Amino acid sequence: MKEIAIGIDIGGTNTVFGIVDKKGNIISKNSILTSGHNDLQTYINVLSTSIKDLLNNLKDEFIFKGIGIGAPNANFHTGTIEHAANLDWKGVLPFADIMKEHFDVPVYLTNDANAAALGEKIYGGAKYMDDFILITLGTGLGSGIFANGRLIYGHSGFAGELGHINAIPNGRLCGCGKKGCLETYVSAKGIVNNAIDFLNSTDEDSLLRDIENFTSKDIYEAALKNDIIALQVFDFTANILGISLADAVAILNPEAIFLFGGLANAGDFILQPAKEYMEENLLEVFKDKVEILPSQLEGGNAAILGASALVFTN
Amino acid sequence: MKEIAIGIDIGGTNTVFGIVDKKGNIISKNSILTSGHNDLQTYINVLSTSIKDLLNNLKDEFIFKGIGIGAPNANFHTGTIEHAANLDWKGVLPFADIMKEHFDVPVYLTNDANAAALGEKIYGGAKYMDDFILITLGTGLGSGIFANGRLIYGHSGFAGELGHINAIPNGRLCGCGKKGCLETYVSAKGIVNNAIDFLNSTDEDSLLRDIENFTSKDIYEAALKNDIIALQVFDFTANILGISLADAVAILNPEAIFLFGGLANAGDFILQPAKEYMEENLLEVFKDKVEILPSQLEGGNAAILGASALVFTN
Repeated sequence: MKEIAIGIDIGGTNTVFGIVDKKGNIISKNSILTSGHNDLQTYINVLSTSIKDLLNNLKDEFIFKGIGIGAPNANFHTGTIEHAANLDWKGVLPFADIMKEHFDVPVYLTNDANAAALGEKIYGGAKYMDDFILITLGTGLGSGIFANGRLIYGHSGFAGELGHINAIPNGRLCGCGKKGCLETYVSAKGIVNNAIDFLNSTDEDSLLRDIENFTSKDIYEAALKNDIIALQVFDFTANILGISLADAVAILNPEAIFLFGGLANAGDFILQPAKEYMEENLLEVFKDKVEILPSQLEGGNAAILGASALVFTN
Repeated sequence: MKEIAIGIDIGGTNTVFGIVDKKGNIISKNSILTSGHNDLQTYINVLSTSIKDLLNNLKDEFIFKGIGIGAPNANFHTGTIEHAANLDWKGVLPFADIMKEHFDVPVYLTNDANAAALGEKIYGGAKYMDDFILITLGTGLGSGIFANGRLIYGHSGFAGELGHINAIPNGRLCGCGKKGCLETYVSAKGIVNNAIDFLNSTDEDSLLRDIENFTSKDIYEAALKNDIIALQVFDFTANILGISLADAVAILNPEAIFLFGGLANAGDFILQPAKEYMEENLLEVFKDKVEILPSQLEGGNAAILGASALVFTN
């Protein structure tokens, strides 16, 4: 009989979920809105009903192994979501416990980046790696770290906050309240702010000057057209990323670093120069030994796969 | 029957070694000079003979479990010492393999900081911790990292090079060839250079001006006498350390950070302010949750204990 798990990815806007088998095949999937519900209990009621519908429609018999959830500010140790800025519900939410009232299976919860790293390990490019880092480049910058073949959660469940290391002393103000955090420069939002700084510091022509509220995607498209400002912005961003990756390598000595998410798709504008800047800043013993790779998980399903991997690895 | 291990600490000048039981009692110990031998083979002959003497003098029967060695630039995975600047023998030395020709037991090799971290875990203050960092503040700055209850060696055996993260952009030249590495500011040698910079930048009186080639110990003693420059130098050094520790916490989320070695003994001049600067730079979720502690291993025997712990943990 086939073993299956439910993988759930909770984003600020949508919650996507699916039935996944042990090989990483998504048997079926669906989504609901994350926001707009009266309260957390109502949201979880809607979510649970939708999941049960999916399960009821399964034709073959199966063994339901558990539920894995990727969510912002999620704590693996406690099964709680804590003070998530992008969700409607504030405070410390006993998310896993409430889910267990609806399903008689183990429920695991971790943050988005950890879930993505697990997905990379189980289904993606890190299958045969014991030591690697996965970096999510979305609105912010998150990371999931494997060492000795296991995900590092840390003492209180919040390891992997690479987005909040001190990249630029007394630099840009971060949403976390600190200054100069890596994600204020290297993320979809960070690169837009980098571009604004570049545009404000020169009279150089740029396609970006004609776009109101341009996005990281607009910067990428401008770079494809050889826009000088856009190319400089990518180089600047890759430089900061490369130096920080060199620091992460010095501490963790990974086999590879995977980049995941929107900005990671900017390919040669970010991966290749980040690799070069990293190499410049590596100790001799690490040079030419650490690969920077795009995530091997298929974009649309990666979050569900990562969340379901929580079930098959615990 | 008692289980025993041999712990060996190879320093640039002396090699100290001892017989250790599983509880961390040093039954007997001795030392030989590291340098001044014709070649590596001769040195290992002398070392092996001295160890066999110790073993032959043991009164009780025992089970000889293995040999653990802490050495600079040692690679746990391969049992080699690689390009160690402070040793007579250059290149990649198959140290563990040569030792195995003399002893029919497992031989484990790792770098000094990893050995110290193992010692802290088995015999010291980290007995009940799964996630912690030990930092050695000697001539340089090294670190050993535990996550999920296991030492992190990394893919090629060189994890824990916290001394070579980028602390000051384009800062002081490091022995490794990079610029601004943490250990160029935070180490016995680093703090002396910090003091020289402070003395050269002001006319302020200082006890240090009267000491030719002053050491980190002289700076400590001047600070004890409220020497303003010495106090400023400690504050400056602790600030750089604190910011870097905050970065390490963001990545690893440890329960505690242990400081080990000469400079760590400067107590309140370094531990307390480093803790304050670290707290200032921590994400909210980590604040007031990470202790900075002096190593609980007794100084003179720590290196032997740490090396012997390699045997009892593998």
